[in-house]
Amino acid sequence: MKLESSQKLLFIGDSVTDCERAKPEGEGLFGALGKGYVSYVDALLQAVYPELGIRVVNKGISGNTVRDLKNRWQEDVMNQEPDWLSIMIGINDVWRQYDTPFIKEWHVYADEYEETLRKLVTETKPFTKGLVLMTPFYLESNEQDLMRKTMDQYGQIVRKIAEETGCLFVDTQAAFNELLKELYPAVIAWDRVHPSAAGHMVLARAFLKEIGFQWDRI
Amino acid sequence: MKLESSQKLLFIGDSVTDCERAKPEGEGLFGALGKGYVSYVDALLQAVYPELGIRVVNKGISGNTVRDLKNRWQEDVMNQEPDWLSIMIGINDVWRQYDTPFIKEWHVYADEYEETLRKLVTETKPFTKGLVLMTPFYLESNEQDLMRKTMDQYGQIVRKIAEETGCLFVDTQAAFNELLKELYPAVIAWDRVHPSAAGHMVLARAFLKEIGFQWDRI
Amino acid sequence: MKLESSQKLLFIGDSVTDCERAKPEGEGLFGALGKGYVSYVDALLQAVYPELGIRVVNKGISGNTVRDLKNRWQEDVMNQEPDWLSIMIGINDVWRQYDTPFIKEWHVYADEYEETLRKLVTETKPFTKGLVLMTPFYLESNEQDLMRKTMDQYGQIVRKIAEETGCLFVDTQAAFNELLKELYPAVIAWDRVHPSAAGHMVLARAFLKEIGFQWDRI
Amino acid sequence: MKLESSQKLLFIGDSVTDCERAKPEGEGLFGALGKGYVSYVDALLQAVYPELGIRVVNKGISGNTVRDLKNRWQEDVMNQEPDWLSIMIGINDVWRQYDTPFIKEWHVYADEYEETLRKLVTETKPFTKGLVLMTPFYLESNEQDLMRKTMDQYGQIVRKIAEETGCLFVDTQAAFNELLKELYPAVIAWDRVHPSAAGHMVLARAFLKEIGFQWDRI
Amino acid sequence: MKLESSQKLLFIGDSVTDCERAKPEGEGLFGALGKGYVSYVDALLQAVYPELGIRVVNKGISGNTVRDLKNRWQEDVMNQEPDWLSIMIGINDVWRQYDTPFIKEWHVYADEYEETLRKLVTETKPFTKGLVLMTPFYLESNEQDLMRKTMDQYGQIVRKIAEETGCLFVDTQAAFNELLKELYPAVIAWDRVHPSAAGHMVLARAFLKEIGFQWDRI
Amino acid sequence: MKLESSQKLLFIGDSVTDCERAKPEGEGLFGALGKGYVSYVDALLQAVYPELGIRVVNKGISGNTVRDLKNRWQEDVMNQEPDWLSIMIGINDVWRQYDTPFIKEWHVYADEYEETLRKLVTETKPFTKGLVLMTPFYLESNEQDLMRKTMDQYGQIVRKIAEETGCLFVDTQAAFNELLKELYPAVIAWDRVHPSAAGHMVLARAFLKEIGFQWDRI
Amino acid sequence: MKLESSQKLLFIGDSVTDCERAKPEGEGLFGALGKGYVSYVDALLQAVYPELGIRVVNKGISGNTVRDLKNRWQEDVMNQEPDWLSIMIGINDVWRQYDTPFIKEWHVYADEYEETLRKLVTETKPFTKGLVLMTPFYLESNEQDLMRKTMDQYGQIVRKIAEETGCLFVDTQAAFNELLKELYPAVIAWDRVHPSAAGHMVLARAFLKEIGFQWDRI
Amino acid sequence: MKLESSQKLLFIGDSVTDCERAKPEGEGLFGALGKGYVSYVDALLQAVYPELGIRVVNKGISGNTVRDLKNRWQEDVMNQEPDWLSIMIGINDVWRQYDTPFIKEWHVYADEYEETLRKLVTETKPFTKGLVLMTPFYLESNEQDLMRKTMDQYGQIVRKIAEETGCLFVDTQAAFNELLKELYPAVIAWDRVHPSAAGHMVLARAFLKEIGFQWDRI
Repeated sequence: MKLESSQKLLFIGDSVTDCERAKPEGEGLFGALGKGYVSYVDALLQAVYPELGIRVVNKGISGNTVRDLKNRWQEDVMNQEPDWLSIMIGINDVWRQYDTPFIKEWHVYADEYEETLRKLVTETKPFTKGLVLMTPFYLESNEQDLMRKTMDQYGQIVRKIAEETGCLFVDTQAAFNELLKELYPAVIAWDRVHPSAAGHMVLARAFLKEIGFQWDRI
Repeated sequence: MKLESSQKLLFIGDSVTDCERAKPEGEGLFGALGKGYVSYVDALLQAVYPELGIRVVNKGISGNTVRDLKNRWQEDVMNQEPDWLSIMIGINDVWRQYDTPFIKEWHVYADEYEETLRKLVTETKPFTKGLVLMTPFYLESNEQDLMRKTMDQYGQIVRKIAEETGCLFVDTQAAFNELLKELYPAVIAWDRVHPSAAGHMVLARAFLKEIGFQWDRI
Repeated sequence: MKLESSQKLLFIGDSVTDCERAKPEGEGLFGALGKGYVSYVDALLQAVYPELGIRVVNKGISGNTVRDLKNRWQEDVMNQEPDWLSIMIGINDVWRQYDTPFIKEWHVYADEYEETLRKLVTETKPFTKGLVLMTPFYLESNEQDLMRKTMDQYGQIVRKIAEETGCLFVDTQAAFNELLKELYPAVIAWDRVHPSAAGHMVLARAFLKEIGFQWDRI
Repeated sequence: MKLESSQKLLFIGDSVTDCERAKPEGEGLFGALGKGYVSYVDALLQAVYPELGIRVVNKGISGNTVRDLKNRWQEDVMNQEPDWLSIMIGINDVWRQYDTPFIKEWHVYADEYEETLRKLVTETKPFTKGLVLMTPFYLESNEQDLMRKTMDQYGQIVRKIAEETGCLFVDTQAAFNELLKELYPAVIAWDRVHPSAAGHMVLARAFLKEIGFQWDRI
Repeated sequence: MKLESSQKLLFIGDSVTDCERAKPEGEGLFGALGKGYVSYVDALLQAVYPELGIRVVNKGISGNTVRDLKNRWQEDVMNQEPDWLSIMIGINDVWRQYDTPFIKEWHVYADEYEETLRKLVTETKPFTKGLVLMTPFYLESNEQDLMRKTMDQYGQIVRKIAEETGCLFVDTQAAFNELLKELYPAVIAWDRVHPSAAGHMVLARAFLKEIGFQWDRI
Repeated sequence: MKLESSQKLLFIGDSVTDCERAKPEGEGLFGALGKGYVSYVDALLQAVYPELGIRVVNKGISGNTVRDLKNRWQEDVMNQEPDWLSIMIGINDVWRQYDTPFIKEWHVYADEYEETLRKLVTETKPFTKGLVLMTPFYLESNEQDLMRKTMDQYGQIVRKIAEETGCLFVDTQAAFNELLKELYPAVIAWDRVHPSAAGHMVLARAFLKEIGFQWDRI
Repeated sequence: MKLESSQKLLFIGDSVTDCERAKPEGEGLFGALGKGYVSYVDALLQAVYPELGIRVVNKGISGNTVRDLKNRWQEDVMNQEPDWLSIMIGINDVWRQYDTPFIKEWHVYADEYEETLRKLVTETKPFTKGLVLMTPFYLESNEQDLMRKTMDQYGQIVRKIAEETGCLFVDTQAAFNELLKELYPAVIAWDRVHPSAAGHMVLARAFLKEIGFQWDRI
Repeated sequence: MKLESSQKLLFIGDSVTDCERAKPEGEGLFGALGKGYVSYVDALLQAVYPELGIRVVNKGISGNTVRDLKNRWQEDVMNQEPDWLSIMIGINDVWRQYDTPFIKEWHVYADEYEETLRKLVTETKPFTKGLVLMTPFYLESNEQDLMRKTMDQYGQIVRKIAEETGCLFVDTQAAFNELLKELYPAVIAWDRVHPSAAGHMVLARAFLKEIGFQWDRI
């Protein structure tokens, strides 16, 4: 288990991370962590490692792209001084190219995405004890689908940056692909993006595996 | 793993089971299973055993005692023809004795509790492929606390019935006690009854362990 | 133009037809026809053929399958005594097989679909001056997609019944396919089922072409 | 067809244009263009010319007069840099003279109307590839009605400015007059101003005819 | 003054009478009489004739035609045993012919209107100390307007029945015509039917004049 | 009739004047004048003197004392440039002394009341064509009641100022006393302050008598 | 102290008793006893006599007269089998005579009041261990006020019945009169009926004195 | 009785004090003092000492710690110039250490608590005629419970400061302990912090005893 006692673990991202979290704080009692994978990670850490006292903070905001993250990075990440940081961004960067193709200023293309993400990761990593990069994903099993292809491309960018910078890496698309072998995408997400409870559990489990979580330790 | 392909797994209980589930159905998309341990069990089963296609149904109703379960048993359990059935009841049977002590007709004392639960289990088990009995619990670490003592007594009744009838048995109090060694009860439940996300994960995990769930199988 | 002066044109179907229509009546002022293709058909008929005085009625209900139509056919179709009838059903019959695969009783398989639809059409056609069958559709451009394949199969059933019974036939999937050559599905429908305004206009236009509507007559 | 690939088409006006559009943006998914003629124009363009990728923006605001347009022109028109611009204004300029006759400062009389509109058109036209002027209208068939007469006068001003400046011109009153031969005004608008779906389709169709739209091209 | 001490005065009609009255009672404190002419009549009677103790009851219901009055006559008029009765009905009987011309079953044509109204008046008058018939009206100053002409025809029917049966008669259209000489209809009613406060005062004043009310008596 | 064509008549006061008027404007369509005596005055003026075109504005605000009026006098009275002004203030100045006797800073005693009101009247009268002073009132028939006695004292102050400055004067308490001879106060106002519709009509009628209104002129 | 261990004490009455109590039960946690004197009695009993375990039930319903109590007596009193019963009724019986004087059927005059109340008391007393009769009251200090005089008359009826039947008697008017010597009625109740917190405390204290409550016992 | 005529008594604290009081004022009619012990103290003072005219002000704010009090002390205490001041703070200072143990910056440890409270008391006492210090409390009867022990420690700090500074002192925990001998904590507070009506009465009574209140004086 890579997390240590009393560390602060901060998640940043888009609506998949947000999931109705409390704002502006993003931590506390009464469902402040939202209803998604962040809440599941916190619940599993506390249920299985109660003695560690990990402090989880959720700073996801619906609709965000990497461009939005950059704009709020100082306040929502640096000022929080997290020990561990997890970033999952890119879905909206790609999606807007496909659902509102004529509004070009809403698109974040691969170049800008890569450059911005790399800059954020590079500058932040020295201040953390661990940084986890999670790929964006698209719950479409046809790999030739245009948006799936673009999303895979952005996932590759995340992988590349993780390798360059020595971050932990979570391939969420790969984790979902296991389910898509058995289940039609609409079971997990009506719009192929916002996961069901099972989908969020896939994300939580993929994250936890990467940080060395042991389900059976107690 | 004790559950088999395409089986239906029905949970019945009180508010801890209910957790804002859809009514009257208790299954379907969009959070129909509620926000509690039932939803977590379903999510973990689908995330880790996607090929099994387990159908989970939530029939919890807030405020219920075993007396209420008896009254709706035919419609909410027998007519549903579940392959697997999980029962967690008793918290309100005990709680009303402590929070509204003067309204005696709201109390379900141990004799009635035991008799009613045994009857429901005995009559239903032959129609199922598996029946899981979960104890009620109270998130109070002081074992001398009066309500905790009564709750433990009801938990013992559940254990006895499970042994008599050959049901699977989940000692939820024991599972919570592990956390209570490390955490003050208010972290897990402000009113010592309705669990946080972590508390529901404790319940889900205790249930899953009993049915042979393997976190690391894929 | 096949419709004649003062005729009543009734649409029946699921949520794509419903679109927040007034209930129970389904006609009148102030958006009683809903916000979808039914409203567009009515608006175009009144704008271009104001002298005809066509009376349009919307009897769509969200979530309906052909099984639901059968149950309300007497009240919502026969008792209304429409001169013209348009039926578009089948999306939910198929969708439930893909989004809630484990709840079998919610599925309407092809045999039941065909038999039920044929019976309704055969028995009703003699009482109408015209009957239009519109196929269900799925806004997925990959023809190998499983749900798209099933939907195409149901569309074929509609075509067959139309040919057998001499009904007018509207191939909505074909109409949408024209758009899908140029646009990614998410532009027209986030969940690949509920169309945008443009998607509803595609449906209205396909319907109107089949009944001989002339955009430029005045 | 006068519009070309990837052009931006912006509509500005009053409540007839607004129709519950999203604010402040006025474009995007989920009904952001409102429920009126702007939405219909967009839907018909996308349904019939999907390959053009026209970007439609709605900047109508309820209750506006030409005086209000002037005040927000820089932000809502110039800064948007539209390729095509459509203006329909004047109904409230006239209406306030008739429904609140004693509150003189709410009235925009013909001189101010003409001068302001001409100035906006003259200064903006050089920056656009096309500018469409739509007349205000009043759904009253009696041409001797006082408010109808004033509205016709304002419509003549629009026509004059269109001719002077070489703008495309849409005579909405003339388009409605075709319907008013067959239908009593209350069918199209209870208050003789805010059109029904059919009324908005009349507006959309009149606009589309002027820009060379072909209903039957595909 | 024709009303005498402690008499009950009941008003029945459509939305012009209703005006958000309390239901089902239609009398009592806190605005139970609604916001329209019934409330004004009551207020003026109590302010100027406080010693009379007239009891006013409002039984108007929005959307009603004379056909609806017939259906609720026993309960809402006869069972109330009013000393005085005032009837104003017919606006919707006419309006539906003009705003929803294709839904014929919503129309109440002149023959049915006359026959029904005469029957209600004839049968009820013997049980009252006074019966007032108020014409329907339409706030359109052009007498050649089709709906105005029809409304005038219905007003003539009311006049005829009043004369035949010896009822008091209030020509509301004539009262409004005085205002329409000076004011455009939109000042008094945006939809030419539902009056402003001033319009309701016109109705109250016309009614009060007919029953001998003296503004200056105290 | 003292008001002349096209004049603006502004009412200022407390909750009795306010009565849910539109804010901040206090004039316009759709009940902008509120539901109280201001609305009745406007309705009667328009119904009986439609050719005058009087513009009525309501600037009452609930809870106001004369101290509050002073603070908003420039904006709500002077900037409005009314031809006629009507002031009714003082109820709260007195009431707070009786319902919250211990919160002294909420009380406006007679000296401050007189001085402030005189200053406002004296400075404003030269700018108006007519100024009407209405007394505050208390719907208690026992003249020995303490609050009634204080209210009468404030009414005397208003009378004195009216006489000194040559303002029109409306003794609202005297007008209500006529009713209180016949009716128990609870009929007109449950809290003895906020009048029923009949009570507001008493106020409107007393005001109108003072300005020479003729009910029977047309 | 007249109440003994584990007894049930039921209050019945009108809005002064009701005070937003839970319905239909009228007991339990979370403010089920409402916000008025019943809640205060319960709170004081539990705070000062915690060992007694008195069970308090609130069956007040707003607007009730003694006629209404009669209609629900079997269900709301007899079926509840209270040990102690407290009745406070009559305010609405009197009030309706003064606030809606023309709606005679809403009035309950003294004869009916006395006869009904005596019958209820006589028939019920044998089934209780104690029955407390509380007078109605009116927070008007002028004893010559008409409504106060009538209320005093009803209070005398209650006193007479209490004496005849040997019930405990609480003169609430007398208790309030002590306050009215010092405080203007509006301090305690804006409408002279519904008491402030202090007014409810007066009621609670008067009741408690009658049953032998000792503030200083612990 | 220590309070004298016309004195102002101000309560400051956390949610137990706040109880939905009006904001920002914290005094006035209509429940402005909230629903808790402050309202009960006021009600009992006014009911039993009506001639004193004590002015009660509630400045409690939910969630506050002593650190929050310090920040608003000038505005909410000093500027109010109370004659008497009552402070009850510390519950949240302790609770956050137990319900959100990982968010350290939300905790106010004993040192800071003592230092801050002493400073506020010392500086303020000279400006008041009386200052009452109430301990925080925890409705847990097990004195070995960790949070109860900490709360007792904070209560000791309050006692010490009271002794040092000569303030009146109310041991709320001791007052509650009397009840906890007879009643399980859940009867008085589901979360062991927010009291029921009975719990608030315990607080009010303990406060009143300390200031010399005599229940039986009238």
